[in-house]
Amino acid sequence: MHVQQMIGAHPGAAAGVQGRASEALARCIEAAFDCAQACTACADACLAEPRVSELTQCIRFDLDCADVCVATGTVASRRTGSDAPVVRALLQACEEACRLCAQECGRHAHDMAHCRLCAEACAMCARACAEALADLGGRTH
Amino acid sequence: MHVQQMIGAHPGAAAGVQGRASEALARCIEAAFDCAQACTACADACLAEPRVSELTQCIRFDLDCADVCVATGTVASRRTGSDAPVVRALLQACEEACRLCAQECGRHAHDMAHCRLCAEACAMCARACAEALADLGGRTH
Amino acid sequence: MHVQQMIGAHPGAAAGVQGRASEALARCIEAAFDCAQACTACADACLAEPRVSELTQCIRFDLDCADVCVATGTVASRRTGSDAPVVRALLQACEEACRLCAQECGRHAHDMAHCRLCAEACAMCARACAEALADLGGRTH
Amino acid sequence: MHVQQMIGAHPGAAAGVQGRASEALARCIEAAFDCAQACTACADACLAEPRVSELTQCIRFDLDCADVCVATGTVASRRTGSDAPVVRALLQACEEACRLCAQECGRHAHDMAHCRLCAEACAMCARACAEALADLGGRTH
Repeated sequence: MHVQQMIGAHPGAAAGVQGRASEALARCIEAAFDCAQACTACADACLAEPRVSELTQCIRFDLDCADVCVATGTVASRRTGSDAPVVRALLQACEEACRLCAQECGRHAHDMAHCRLCAEACAMCARACAEALADLGGRTH
Repeated sequence: MHVQQMIGAHPGAAAGVQGRASEALARCIEAAFDCAQACTACADACLAEPRVSELTQCIRFDLDCADVCVATGTVASRRTGSDAPVVRALLQACEEACRLCAQECGRHAHDMAHCRLCAEACAMCARACAEALADLGGRTH
Repeated sequence: MHVQQMIGAHPGAAAGVQGRASEALARCIEAAFDCAQACTACADACLAEPRVSELTQCIRFDLDCADVCVATGTVASRRTGSDAPVVRALLQACEEACRLCAQECGRHAHDMAHCRLCAEACAMCARACAEALADLGGRTH
Repeated sequence: MHVQQMIGAHPGAAAGVQGRASEALARCIEAAFDCAQACTACADACLAEPRVSELTQCIRFDLDCADVCVATGTVASRRTGSDAPVVRALLQACEEACRLCAQECGRHAHDMAHCRLCAEACAMCARACAEALADLGGRTH
């Protein structure tokens, strides 16, 4: 992905206004889009399982997590002006969505490869959100 | 919109499991999609203003708010299984995004009709999020 | 929704550059967001049905239709500069997604209220897309 | 990204029903999310440029392209049931959006690094869409 390069190419980057938050945020943006895709694919794979009726909670978490991840990756990609309270609130929502989805997918990881992979993508994204939050000055609530 | 009817048609509705949260959540879902559209249109209208260079912070808030509103309206439309912590975290992020955007658009409301209308849509959505949050048992953070 | 008012408030509106396309496009934007919400809620309601395993094709159409509708409603809300080929291509994709989803939901309309309502929202959106396309000068492919 | 692994983990993959479309589609999904992020970041970077008033068409293409790419990457990530006409229509819309955005960003590539990088991401995605379309049996319109 072009995330890190795009951050370096922002007119504000030369002025050094972005500080060390850049790297953690870049990893978080990449992880968010990866996780959105993995969750979308996992919801769809769960839907194709013979025992789909036992996987409806997993599908619900997957779909919600995908929506939150796309919004987070998109909003976190903007640096013009300031919108720190919204970025922080979204990172917290995203960390929570990823944590819950990783937990639920983890329960099916032993016999469904899509859940194992999705749990992995979710755990990575939850960690990346937490690190980006720390770099942005921590939780507000 | 079909929001209220769709909530009533969910298999869980007959069982009465949704309680009184339904009405506040329905209003919130409608307000979120209305606000997403208004913010998208306002960002675009700001872009067409001769003094666009003075409106970049407004465009940033508009775009972020639109993204958060779509995610919130979508996630809040799901009722199967449970995902309350994520719904609550998103409602808080959405209320904050709408509040900030209403404030900024309000500063331009006297001479730009799109900002006046957008501030109105944002204020309605912020209020609807707060009421939906209260009905869901309040803030967690 | 504020759609029609937002179109009237665009700086280009005074100059009359939007012509009669406005009304058809406004209806299409409203229909697209309504349909996105209905499809999201229908996919979720299908997931909560005891016979979910027979509804997986319906859920697939619902989820795809919701994604296309959000993108179409968002892109169609912009008027600054020009992007007619993309607006047209999206309207065609959206009409197709809504037509297919209306058809599939229609098959379950007799015993599931959410599919009946969703088929209605999809049919309205398919029609609104076709009319907006006609006003924009018709199909390109 | 986990795209290729997620495709291999779908219950239908073992049955070999996905054929050779997999690789082209996987590249297309990755390119679509990369392009969505690059376009979002480029619109935001254009907004921070001193001569933003000359870049409004570029921002319009960027924002539209980002929306189409997210929808395309998401819909293309589903394989349960069938929805080929919608996938094809979206791939065509996405190829067109990426082609137009690559062209416009290309005009500013010599003096703005974000436009040069974004043009690159758009061109890659346009090509990936064309190849995925060819593998899916070609254009329908």
